[in-house]
Amino acid sequence: MDYQTVLDDIYRDIAPWRGSGTVARYIPELARVPVDKFGMAVVTVDGRCFTVGDAGERFSIQSISKLFACVMAFRLLGDALWQRVGREPSGTAFNSLVQLETEQGKPRNPFINAGALVVTDVLAQRFVRADTAVLAFIRRLIDQADLNYDSRVAQSEMAHANRNRAIAHFMASFGNMQMPPEQVVEAYCRQCAITMSCVELAQAALFLANGGVAPLTGERILDVSANKRLSALMLTCGTYDAAGDFVFRVGLPAKSGVGGGIVALLPGELALCVWSPGLDANGNSLAGVQALELFTTYTGRSLF
Amino acid sequence: MDYQTVLDDIYRDIAPWRGSGTVARYIPELARVPVDKFGMAVVTVDGRCFTVGDAGERFSIQSISKLFACVMAFRLLGDALWQRVGREPSGTAFNSLVQLETEQGKPRNPFINAGALVVTDVLAQRFVRADTAVLAFIRRLIDQADLNYDSRVAQSEMAHANRNRAIAHFMASFGNMQMPPEQVVEAYCRQCAITMSCVELAQAALFLANGGVAPLTGERILDVSANKRLSALMLTCGTYDAAGDFVFRVGLPAKSGVGGGIVALLPGELALCVWSPGLDANGNSLAGVQALELFTTYTGRSLF
Amino acid sequence: MDYQTVLDDIYRDIAPWRGSGTVARYIPELARVPVDKFGMAVVTVDGRCFTVGDAGERFSIQSISKLFACVMAFRLLGDALWQRVGREPSGTAFNSLVQLETEQGKPRNPFINAGALVVTDVLAQRFVRADTAVLAFIRRLIDQADLNYDSRVAQSEMAHANRNRAIAHFMASFGNMQMPPEQVVEAYCRQCAITMSCVELAQAALFLANGGVAPLTGERILDVSANKRLSALMLTCGTYDAAGDFVFRVGLPAKSGVGGGIVALLPGELALCVWSPGLDANGNSLAGVQALELFTTYTGRSLF
Amino acid sequence: MDYQTVLDDIYRDIAPWRGSGTVARYIPELARVPVDKFGMAVVTVDGRCFTVGDAGERFSIQSISKLFACVMAFRLLGDALWQRVGREPSGTAFNSLVQLETEQGKPRNPFINAGALVVTDVLAQRFVRADTAVLAFIRRLIDQADLNYDSRVAQSEMAHANRNRAIAHFMASFGNMQMPPEQVVEAYCRQCAITMSCVELAQAALFLANGGVAPLTGERILDVSANKRLSALMLTCGTYDAAGDFVFRVGLPAKSGVGGGIVALLPGELALCVWSPGLDANGNSLAGVQALELFTTYTGRSLF
Repeated sequence: MDYQTVLDDIYRDIAPWRGSGTVARYIPELARVPVDKFGMAVVTVDGRCFTVGDAGERFSIQSISKLFACVMAFRLLGDALWQRVGREPSGTAFNSLVQLETEQGKPRNPFINAGALVVTDVLAQRFVRADTAVLAFIRRLIDQADLNYDSRVAQSEMAHANRNRAIAHFMASFGNMQMPPEQVVEAYCRQCAITMSCVELAQAALFLANGGVAPLTGERILDVSANKRLSALMLTCGTYDAAGDFVFRVGLPAKSGVGGGIVALLPGELALCVWSPGLDANGNSLAGVQALELFTTYTGRSLF
Repeated sequence: MDYQTVLDDIYRDIAPWRGSGTVARYIPELARVPVDKFGMAVVTVDGRCFTVGDAGERFSIQSISKLFACVMAFRLLGDALWQRVGREPSGTAFNSLVQLETEQGKPRNPFINAGALVVTDVLAQRFVRADTAVLAFIRRLIDQADLNYDSRVAQSEMAHANRNRAIAHFMASFGNMQMPPEQVVEAYCRQCAITMSCVELAQAALFLANGGVAPLTGERILDVSANKRLSALMLTCGTYDAAGDFVFRVGLPAKSGVGGGIVALLPGELALCVWSPGLDANGNSLAGVQALELFTTYTGRSLF
Repeated sequence: MDYQTVLDDIYRDIAPWRGSGTVARYIPELARVPVDKFGMAVVTVDGRCFTVGDAGERFSIQSISKLFACVMAFRLLGDALWQRVGREPSGTAFNSLVQLETEQGKPRNPFINAGALVVTDVLAQRFVRADTAVLAFIRRLIDQADLNYDSRVAQSEMAHANRNRAIAHFMASFGNMQMPPEQVVEAYCRQCAITMSCVELAQAALFLANGGVAPLTGERILDVSANKRLSALMLTCGTYDAAGDFVFRVGLPAKSGVGGGIVALLPGELALCVWSPGLDANGNSLAGVQALELFTTYTGRSLF
Repeated sequence: MDYQTVLDDIYRDIAPWRGSGTVARYIPELARVPVDKFGMAVVTVDGRCFTVGDAGERFSIQSISKLFACVMAFRLLGDALWQRVGREPSGTAFNSLVQLETEQGKPRNPFINAGALVVTDVLAQRFVRADTAVLAFIRRLIDQADLNYDSRVAQSEMAHANRNRAIAHFMASFGNMQMPPEQVVEAYCRQCAITMSCVELAQAALFLANGGVAPLTGERILDVSANKRLSALMLTCGTYDAAGDFVFRVGLPAKSGVGGGIVALLPGELALCVWSPGLDANGNSLAGVQALELFTTYTGRSLF
């Protein structure tokens, strides 16, 4: 399929949505990004790459990092991971403590903040610095040594991490946090501050669309079954409390971040990434979701 | 693919799970069904049909009826339906009133009881008898005039419908119920009491795997886009509060009922239905979910 | 003490608050009452009566009726009543269903709607018509045969009782409703529609300030211990979700209604009633609470 | 009244309840206290003191310290305190985070953990060490320089304070915590570890029964109105989620602690304290509540 034309059409038709929504304001560093940025990249399992707009510009990947951290934790623990974190949509806001209290400190899934902190805790038990390990993992996936996190963003996150600290201590009180909560929160903040471009993110996620094998290096990241299951998890839990609506409109496994990025998969074919910093009420990129809906409409491709 | 061999293998390998779980006890009529019943049927869009075990025996379809009623309501209202009912996983038990209070009487999705009652209300506004209309719709889908509901089950449901009455009146208090709650609950109870076999259910759902066109009659039930979206909704919301786990393990759009039936789709290829009355803690057929997991494993087919 | 001077001073000083707040709008009949009405009556256990303003005008007693119904149910069942309804402040809105779901259909106390419906159910098991029985009980307390309920208000309540119907059916689903929910709701609506004046309400409640004996007739209504306990219940649960604030500001056992009335007690000495239809956000009379606070300030009397 | 005889009768009649309930186990130091300890002290505003059993033995006052800290915070801020913490019963467990999320970080009252942490934060803004300030305040109230906290208990509390840390960080995320959460939690843990006897606790609380003036020193601690209001707050919120039941059974303002102590007031007359380490399901001393109920029965005195 001629994905370049598809991207060009989307770029043209997305214009009314560009600049809509609100840039994440909870940390000053994110609030500074121009709201009308828009980029999109498609990379296929057979090695082609298509881009449009600001697809080469790095941005704060934020919660998209949860996807890579979760893959790492699953490689370490296998199905034992699910004893510490569930696999169900949350039904509440991504940083809520209510469900955590009802369900005795076990987060609903690894893509809400509570679940991501458990994942970081798993990594922190194994690696001296969990955030460095996540960075190294992503670098290896795309063979790009100069990837890093933005230290000003990380510091800014730390200065506004009281709710995440509350969540970490809360889980600790239920026995679901092995390392010191403060250390886990710090690693998590750094991991969220990693900056990547649409092209890099699509390349990093491509193994998920390729049966678990990273096409660039040939390395098997996940076995076929685990790979399917993590893709399923992205579909049901990857876009905060709007997962149902997202699946309904877009129909692709995806993971979003409040930096405005969304990574999505068409299993067996391609990974794609869109970036536009204006967010909707659920914290997903407003133009980004729209662009992905156009993508499935114009290509006639989705899971269903 | 040789689906008969697949079904035969499943039938052999499911033995340890048959008889596990608990038959729904909330109404006496359902409690009487032998717990070790097991049937499975696959029907393909190109007209083949494969069966094993008790695939031809009729059972109470219960919540699977929500799927057909929802399709009918969507045909009547189109996207306006989503003003009265959401498209998000519930994150709580299928008959909870908590979320309804928090979200001002708008149910999370059409597959929890509250949402199904809104759907029935939509039908009751249009048809003299909503339950008869659902029955007629299903009869047309499979060209089978002798389908009916079990009046003893329906009566038994009515005698144990206080929670559904509470839900209906509660939504009425928020203005999200147009017809008399008592009448809506009665229609809903009858609709749940419809009895069908695995073969019939798979045939009735087959249009969803066929781009919205009923293969038997050639009638277009839903347009391509609506058809995709309803399939997506089944995936995220079709198996009560275990949808995440179900997608993780099985990876197919599905709708389950406390009668022990589960209908599932492989878009573009086939619909299948499994029946086994023993339920897990979430109200899904225990052996049924296991059988579907074996199906995706043995065939190597799923959405992902 | 010269209560007439106290009432006159309150009447003068309450002026800035008169007309504040919002008249209950959920039924049209209540919405019609002029918002600047204000009356207050004090009756002492030694037979004196003091009034000011509209103290002789009858108004809809609404939830104040829960007090008398609760006394009747307690006379019937004694402490067995507390197996069906709790004695704790609710911590949530007076008509919430959330706590009811968490606590398996047992209402927190007899003064929220759910608890009052259980109380009505208790009366409906014993009396052919629970509402008539409540009316007869109040008539006897004040020896006033012409008391009645306003049938237009009662009808209006019935037309807006969906939430109460939801609550009643919900409790029925937990087995905490013996009579048909519809019948219980109807009796409850009629009971709420009783109209009384400040003087009549203060007289009717006077036995609670008199150790359980109705001063007018000498009839023992409750034994000393039960009388203390019901007074305690009024203190902690009598003013909806604002009970804590009310005790903090006023410090008297009281029961309020959305008709704008509040009955209060000074144990051993007097009962009083204030009426002003403008309500605060919690559903209590705004000027009424203020007037009671002035009463305890000017007299230097409260429980503490 | 001959309070010595009353205490002796209670001591005799309480025997069946002694040793009942469970000693607080969440920290090892508390778990070591013999469950059959029982002491009770009455001190009157006119200077008499009556005791029975282990009334002179010091124990861990735990949450009773919240009462003294709250008095101090109210002396500092006056009614401005209520902008940071409410005055309503909680309706949920004493250490729940649910209500805190719903109500945007404002605790329901100063006697649940969240509210007590806000109070400690208020003190920590003013005093170099909040816990030392509380200790000094209590020492002054009873003119007893050797009062102290048990450092092993304090350390043990700190080692099990993850939930309190979660609460503190959570409130910080809503802007309702001015000092570093870790520092506030530490001060709070030390303050809970203060040890006092029944006699000392009754003496320390006596000013609340004496219109706000400490009888021993003549110092005015609170003005008359503030004193009444804090007594009211004890009544509605002083015994965790069982306040309604406690008022119903006992009818006195009181504050309990998981060390097994309960301080109570008869306004205008006396303060009393009972100690028995076995707790009921709500965290209140089982024999202690029973003893207080006997006290109001035998003396015929309560608020009502």
